[in-house]
Amino acid sequence: MLLLPALAASHHFIRQAVKPGDVAVDATVGNGHDTCLLAELVGPAGRVYGFDIQPLALSRAAERLAEKGLSGRVQLCPAGHERLKEHLPEECRGNVRAVMFNLGYLPGSDKTVKTKAETTVSALAAALDVLAPGGIITVVIYTGHPEGKTEQEAVYEWASRLDQRHVQVAVYQFLNQVGNPPSLLVIEKSL
Amino acid sequence: MLLLPALAASHHFIRQAVKPGDVAVDATVGNGHDTCLLAELVGPAGRVYGFDIQPLALSRAAERLAEKGLSGRVQLCPAGHERLKEHLPEECRGNVRAVMFNLGYLPGSDKTVKTKAETTVSALAAALDVLAPGGIITVVIYTGHPEGKTEQEAVYEWASRLDQRHVQVAVYQFLNQVGNPPSLLVIEKSL
Repeated sequence: MLLLPALAASHHFIRQAVKPGDVAVDATVGNGHDTCLLAELVGPAGRVYGFDIQPLALSRAAERLAEKGLSGRVQLCPAGHERLKEHLPEECRGNVRAVMFNLGYLPGSDKTVKTKAETTVSALAAALDVLAPGGIITVVIYTGHPEGKTEQEAVYEWASRLDQRHVQVAVYQFLNQVGNPPSLLVIEKSL
Repeated sequence: MLLLPALAASHHFIRQAVKPGDVAVDATVGNGHDTCLLAELVGPAGRVYGFDIQPLALSRAAERLAEKGLSGRVQLCPAGHERLKEHLPEECRGNVRAVMFNLGYLPGSDKTVKTKAETTVSALAAALDVLAPGGIITVVIYTGHPEGKTEQEAVYEWASRLDQRHVQVAVYQFLNQVGNPPSLLVIEKSL
């Protein structure tokens, strides 16, 4: 299939953007799949910072990273992604190659704990702030749960006002699918 | 830049879809750039059918194809794309790997002659009809000219009603650009 689902499309962009030795951020660790991808791409000389407020998410991710021998290059932070800037070492700010967001709730967990419009937008602004020139932010957005539509609207509204001289914002989404398939937003900082 | 403009993104999908020996259609020949791309991708064993109602477009395209030594594998048809089905040989119907649409008017020409919502939608339906399983249609849509918005709405409306069991439809567009940048619609027929 040529038309990738949103999550796979986000990986397509991340694989192009992240190189060995880079610094990257997983803003929504969840079960750690994206954290592992980033850790593999940055290699042993790179560094990944992962954020999640749920202990269950961080313990699952830590286990997955350990299984793959990737723990040494990843720092998991038990904090909301809206605080990502303060958790990054000074030398990483303005030097982050990619930040991944996978919104909604942790699969197989308490569905009342999920990302929210206000903190998501704060986190996106913080992510843009620490991004290196030429770096990207990917945001996979789910609208199938209550509040998902509101979150999507808030994210689109914020992103559509970004100055095109400094940032490009594109969306990729399916038009004809029932069941609210996720959409992908990609934000690229100009060089 | 990782985020390709709509036209370049359409080429990205076409390069993945079209292989040597394939049959492909350029539904809006214009200056023949996309016709040349398709002719190169199908190779000497393949076949490209190109449609345009403007003699100037077809003569420019014929010249470009001749310069590149690609004329032998391309048939240029002086007809509107809504009639593409009747111009394709029987054995090509249901066997077309890709159809490219680049809507709007012919660059550097009479801007009153442009694609229109009604015939564009008829042409898309005809293109979908002749497409091979796994084949794709790319549509680059310009909304910067009068009637462009109406055409985009008609195309989106038609495409969003396609049955997802047989066809996938995705859109790719920029969110934060002034000046109405084009958007890309990709239609993929299921295998």
